[in-house]
Amino acid sequence: MLSDYRLFTADEANDRLGEPIMNIPFSNRITGVQPSAIREILKLSSDPAIISFAAGNPSEDAFPVEAVQKITEEILTEHPIAALQYSLTEGYPALRQTLKNRMLEKGIGREEEEILVMSGAQQGIELATKCLVNEGDVVICEDPSFVGALNTFRSYGAKLVGVEMEHDGIHLAKLEQALKENPNTKLIYLIPTFQNPSGITTSLEKRKACYELAKQYGVMILEDNPYSDLRTEGEEVAPIKTFDDEGIVIYCGTFSKILSPGLRVGYVMVNKELAAKMTVAKQTCDVHSTILSQMICERFLNTVDFDRHLEGLRTIYRHKKNLMLEEMDKCFPQDVISYTRPEGGLFIWCTFKGDVDSADFAKQAVLQKIAVVPGAAFLADDTQKSNSFRMNFSTPKDEDIVGGVETLAEIIRSYVK
Amino acid sequence: MLSDYRLFTADEANDRLGEPIMNIPFSNRITGVQPSAIREILKLSSDPAIISFAAGNPSEDAFPVEAVQKITEEILTEHPIAALQYSLTEGYPALRQTLKNRMLEKGIGREEEEILVMSGAQQGIELATKCLVNEGDVVICEDPSFVGALNTFRSYGAKLVGVEMEHDGIHLAKLEQALKENPNTKLIYLIPTFQNPSGITTSLEKRKACYELAKQYGVMILEDNPYSDLRTEGEEVAPIKTFDDEGIVIYCGTFSKILSPGLRVGYVMVNKELAAKMTVAKQTCDVHSTILSQMICERFLNTVDFDRHLEGLRTIYRHKKNLMLEEMDKCFPQDVISYTRPEGGLFIWCTFKGDVDSADFAKQAVLQKIAVVPGAAFLADDTQKSNSFRMNFSTPKDEDIVGGVETLAEIIRSYVK
Repeated sequence: MLSDYRLFTADEANDRLGEPIMNIPFSNRITGVQPSAIREILKLSSDPAIISFAAGNPSEDAFPVEAVQKITEEILTEHPIAALQYSLTEGYPALRQTLKNRMLEKGIGREEEEILVMSGAQQGIELATKCLVNEGDVVICEDPSFVGALNTFRSYGAKLVGVEMEHDGIHLAKLEQALKENPNTKLIYLIPTFQNPSGITTSLEKRKACYELAKQYGVMILEDNPYSDLRTEGEEVAPIKTFDDEGIVIYCGTFSKILSPGLRVGYVMVNKELAAKMTVAKQTCDVHSTILSQMICERFLNTVDFDRHLEGLRTIYRHKKNLMLEEMDKCFPQDVISYTRPEGGLFIWCTFKGDVDSADFAKQAVLQKIAVVPGAAFLADDTQKSNSFRMNFSTPKDEDIVGGVETLAEIIRSYVK
Repeated sequence: MLSDYRLFTADEANDRLGEPIMNIPFSNRITGVQPSAIREILKLSSDPAIISFAAGNPSEDAFPVEAVQKITEEILTEHPIAALQYSLTEGYPALRQTLKNRMLEKGIGREEEEILVMSGAQQGIELATKCLVNEGDVVICEDPSFVGALNTFRSYGAKLVGVEMEHDGIHLAKLEQALKENPNTKLIYLIPTFQNPSGITTSLEKRKACYELAKQYGVMILEDNPYSDLRTEGEEVAPIKTFDDEGIVIYCGTFSKILSPGLRVGYVMVNKELAAKMTVAKQTCDVHSTILSQMICERFLNTVDFDRHLEGLRTIYRHKKNLMLEEMDKCFPQDVISYTRPEGGLFIWCTFKGDVDSADFAKQAVLQKIAVVPGAAFLADDTQKSNSFRMNFSTPKDEDIVGGVETLAEIIRSYVK
């Protein structure tokens, strides 16, 4: 069964599902989009014998189960019809107001902007792209970047231009070059804090420089910020949205990493003109996000000690990250592999110093029952080879972190000799 | 305040939201899409003084509140982590299997096809369109048809070709003509049972003929079937999907009208090749539908006496529909207006016999605090005038049905003289 392992292409995924009945004329925009390599790996790693460093799931210990039970019961007792009936496309008003107040307190966005509730931050990326990007337009992204967003851009026929990362964020000169060379750029997609997959946090100076470049070239920034509440060390860095006097930053947040991804509640803060268009686009997409989920999030924010809850999450993830890094320091052959030491988030990014194809390495690893995600999955041009891979520390249990890193170290040693 | 009433255009909706910060270069596909006239009316009709016949919401009496409370508590007690964690894009396996078994029992679809859970049937329409329709391709629809679907097609740059309706469904000769004239047709969109907005049920013969035409011209059918469980009179008519030996019918179902629209759970049954592509498209759209919602639907289907529940809904809606029709028979001037007598669903479609612009009529009605939806909103070419309007009987209370129809009758009489 394990020998069947591979990263599925779209065609292979189709094969697994069986023979097509007719030759379906798929749209141009969707033809080239492949299933997320990560989600395909996750299907394999549902094999309980596999230790998965491939996911990005919250730790099972991180779910405030009792609070959610209590809150949900209250909502279904006090407001059962509102929780089950159709609701507004823009989102549950009490949640929108709560989020807006919290964000304005932190200087994120402006009073005259709009919060829209999304079915996960993923939908914020989807609808912003649908409303702004024509087929053939360019989206500039960090290289590597979050594959879920890259696939959204691809699914609207965007041309991806990746700009390499330095230790403190995107390479500015190359970003400006990309903007110059691509006058049809519509979006710069950035994950400034604990970037997925690299774990890199962009410096304040670079954030400001990115904003100035976007302004200068008349391009909007899509700022994806799912992880900033999961800072385990170091000082907070202000989101790009805090400088946004022009309303050119689309800010995406989410409850997925701090409460529950299964509820599918995220949000965007955007200028009113874009908010109106994204609302129209959301009407045609899913009408509104699950209202019970939105009510749970609102009541959680307003009745639970949220700061204490976040401190609890940070304690869990600080422990797991440090455990993984300590094991890696102890076991990984430091002459052949390097890795990032993020100050938060969920991921560590490993890079072979030599010329190693990490797709092949990941295949060897899964044969030893360890799942990691090969770096090519995160590249703007995912047909390139990558000598990097991504490791997640939030999902595995402590003993699996220890055992998994030890096994991975053995594979690295046997593989690179 | 009421004198401010109008059907908002996209530009007007933007105005209401405030001044734009910058001149945003929206994508071509979204530029022409306007907010759903219905949802804009619904915002107005949140004024409690207005009697709304404009919505399509389930009756407040139709929600099985106690069962949902009990089921939700069980799920959050027995499987809290599964209900809050990330889940599979294709949907909750137990729900997919339950739905598939129920559908196969009724002859809908085939064993080798796939059920995918959607965030409402709206998302089934969205993802099918995204995967199949290029900008400039044609979608043929019944004229009038469901505005939410029409806006989805528009939002992907489709050209809509409307085919007029007869009392027993779409005009077949004109459908064939439309197929002949538009070789780039990708989809025929049909709501064969208790059509929204007309209330018309397509005859079995016409369903078969539509299927044969689709096969002959190599076009897929998108069969939207949200209402068939709400049959209050007459004999069931088999869905088009029951003839579908070729896998060319995309069948959309939903829990919105039979359990809860707020949970946002719908589904599609499609051939495996399209299922694989729609899964990829859903990954980039919202990753998966709210898993708690899916678990509630699955447990509701498997632990509640579902047939009895449906019989309860039919009793509610039979009563409301008959009450509205009786009042209309009694009060409406039959020489100036005609209307459909649907055997189920949620809507009655009224048509002035003379040359009346129903948009203007609806404006007069809302000034008298009655909301109806003017027919132009449902047309493939919504810049046309329509002498029809849609009335909903599921949402208003009994006394409001009686009072509202009486007031509407007065307006009709004063208006058409």
